[in-house]
Amino acid sequence: MRVRIALRELGVPFEYAEEDLRVRERSELVRRMNPALHMVPILIHHGRPVCGSVNIVDYIDEVWGEETRLLPGDPADRADARFWADFVDHKVFGAQVRFLESKGEEKDELVEQLKRLEEVLGDKCFFSGDNFGFLDVVFIPFSSMFYGYEQHGGINLEVECPKLKRWEKRCRERESVSEVLPDGKVQYELHKKFYGIE
Amino acid sequence: MRVRIALRELGVPFEYAEEDLRVRERSELVRRMNPALHMVPILIHHGRPVCGSVNIVDYIDEVWGEETRLLPGDPADRADARFWADFVDHKVFGAQVRFLESKGEEKDELVEQLKRLEEVLGDKCFFSGDNFGFLDVVFIPFSSMFYGYEQHGGINLEVECPKLKRWEKRCRERESVSEVLPDGKVQYELHKKFYGIE
Repeated sequence: MRVRIALRELGVPFEYAEEDLRVRERSELVRRMNPALHMVPILIHHGRPVCGSVNIVDYIDEVWGEETRLLPGDPADRADARFWADFVDHKVFGAQVRFLESKGEEKDELVEQLKRLEEVLGDKCFFSGDNFGFLDVVFIPFSSMFYGYEQHGGINLEVECPKLKRWEKRCRERESVSEVLPDGKVQYELHKKFYGIE
Repeated sequence: MRVRIALRELGVPFEYAEEDLRVRERSELVRRMNPALHMVPILIHHGRPVCGSVNIVDYIDEVWGEETRLLPGDPADRADARFWADFVDHKVFGAQVRFLESKGEEKDELVEQLKRLEEVLGDKCFFSGDNFGFLDVVFIPFSSMFYGYEQHGGINLEVECPKLKRWEKRCRERESVSEVLPDGKVQYELHKKFYGIE
């Protein structure tokens, strides 16, 4: 999702191919393009692979970013954006897995991390300020789980993180996001199936 | 180690402060400068923190890199370097922990990953080519565990990864590295203590 959103934001035409996510079913193309991990997403540009979603967004910005840039220009702001991208991938993702596996019981850690991101967002329109940027691209796919957070663990995001909720709405108004993100209910059904939840 | 090596490589003067690594003993400075994770390393520049070792190396290169640059100039090479940095941090680090916790029994995964890095290095002097660069900075601290790999799990690195061994020697000839890296034996004793190994 991140890769497709970034490409759409920068107006880069691309061909999208879905891959079987089951470990044993990885295609020959995936094995050849990412021999170390056999993982998607992979962006293939001029025949050369770029692997890992955050890494690909970075690459897209460097190669196709002109007037519109996803990463901030200032090195300290850039470092901040990268720090929070890492926080989303390693902390929020881990907390979400524990939340789902515990069938919603272990929710405090997840709520705490969402609140931290709410604080980073503050009163800005987007994480990067007035313009949709790198950290927005990185975090917005998680919003397709917001409905699941509410249904599953009874987290009231309107109360806990009202700014994140408004941010989500603002992001979903962008074509790049709305075309790519699944509906929250559909996503929740998928996760329920995956985690064996009634 | 990564941060200090990068600063030395680019000739940036700095003040180094050690922190207590025990979770409950994190100093007020660490809590204030990295409120989300309370983790070191933190680079404080003009009073503003940059957190996370890879992130800091990136920042150092952007701010102080002039003739000498740690990251490659080409976006695809840059993405490759970042991909392997992530591989080191998440795959090799994880495999090293499992190797140590299993008292050397679970070594196949670690050897496989070291061989993959050996392949990436190939016949080049450094991961970046002729010049010591980003991935060298990121991976070289692991070499202080090479002695431990050999002692602990009977991994014969001269046989399994001869190119990595020569690369390690080449890196240790640099002042930036030799001044910062601990001796392999000292590091191994520390780890033995940490993992309760005889």
